[in-house]
Amino acid sequence: MLRSCTQLVKGLTCRPSARCRLDAVRSRGVVDRISLVPFSNASVTTDCALPNDSWSPDMLEQFNKFMEMTRDGTWKRLPSYRKFMEKVTLGGKEYVLKRAPNSRFFMRSIDKEGLGFEYVMFLNQAQKRLVCLFQPGIYLEGPPGFAHGGSTAAILDSTLGGCAFYMAGRIMTGNLNINYKSPIPLGSVVLVESKLDRVEGRKVFMTGHIRSADGQTLHAEATGKSLFVLSQP
Amino acid sequence: MLRSCTQLVKGLTCRPSARCRLDAVRSRGVVDRISLVPFSNASVTTDCALPNDSWSPDMLEQFNKFMEMTRDGTWKRLPSYRKFMEKVTLGGKEYVLKRAPNSRFFMRSIDKEGLGFEYVMFLNQAQKRLVCLFQPGIYLEGPPGFAHGGSTAAILDSTLGGCAFYMAGRIMTGNLNINYKSPIPLGSVVLVESKLDRVEGRKVFMTGHIRSADGQTLHAEATGKSLFVLSQP
Repeated sequence: MLRSCTQLVKGLTCRPSARCRLDAVRSRGVVDRISLVPFSNASVTTDCALPNDSWSPDMLEQFNKFMEMTRDGTWKRLPSYRKFMEKVTLGGKEYVLKRAPNSRFFMRSIDKEGLGFEYVMFLNQAQKRLVCLFQPGIYLEGPPGFAHGGSTAAILDSTLGGCAFYMAGRIMTGNLNINYKSPIPLGSVVLVESKLDRVEGRKVFMTGHIRSADGQTLHAEATGKSLFVLSQP
Repeated sequence: MLRSCTQLVKGLTCRPSARCRLDAVRSRGVVDRISLVPFSNASVTTDCALPNDSWSPDMLEQFNKFMEMTRDGTWKRLPSYRKFMEKVTLGGKEYVLKRAPNSRFFMRSIDKEGLGFEYVMFLNQAQKRLVCLFQPGIYLEGPPGFAHGGSTAAILDSTLGGCAFYMAGRIMTGNLNINYKSPIPLGSVVLVESKLDRVEGRKVFMTGHIRSADGQTLHAEATGKSLFVLSQP
């Protein structure tokens, strides 16, 4: 696991890595074929964590409530893109991301507004909390009318992982344990809450849950353990 | 949880359910707006669990190997669609699925071949095993060049849940616990293995793991607990 993380950090800094098999994949022609898909830079650099026409009144209400809380600086809205930017600044240092050509960030892979993961994250650094407003679209269906358990896992992984990232630095998810309590209706609005629990050495422990916007329904509970990648390759 | 499951079964049989808030969602206009997206019945009814041009030689090799094993009937290839069929037969009974208009099954929500979840599942009823060949596309990116942990969780949930479904009947995931061991390179081919561990009352316990096609790399281990929905509403 540790080795994997180190190799990922190498990927992050553009150094070649034996484990990063992307070149091998490319040589087989897989990525080359895929890269023929038309790709708009404009759509890639558009901040998706802002209201669009698919957002329900409940989603807008929650968004406005959190935006109000950003005014005094205690909360901060996090932008979100279809592809990570090529350069990111973390802890005052700048990193260059080496990504697959024409790749997309999984949580932003569905183009049409409202069909996939509609979400926006808000960070409270002092409280070590990250809250994600999430409206699952109809392309995330699992059981009839409800979000697929895999899409619920994805938003939990992103929120808990995001919280660990902003609190502890470069991390990789080591464990994700989800208790599904009640399925999430498609088109509804839920709050995905995550909190940094503790840090033990290189391990970052997180807790989280998903509740309906009205707070009445507990949809899922989760714990996450991430590995903090300390070393700079 | 049990109540949720019962309500889902009600959804499965087209009976109205207080918990299924889809009507409420529709009344807010969310689903109506989404349903304006063009939707092809042909693409929805195409079996996606068959080779296409995006499949790598490794994927085809594994597919042919498993297809060979289906000849004597010990293994069976499972078809897969962008939307669940309106009618499914399970245990000799026919159920009508009440789905959101124009919805998509999450695991088949990305249209372009090779960009999303390319996978095919094979069932061995006697051994209580389900194996999924999985080639993650470049729209599933998380860490640079690798599959997002949420997409890994999604394929595990689908494989473990699918195994429980075919072994025990109508189930809902209650718990999913994943240990991530090594990130999965985009475009590579992995085998997602699941096995029915035991059934205790209404609880169905599953184990699973993800290995590279050459068996050399353990990418993830998982356990799943599903709730077997016994009662017919």
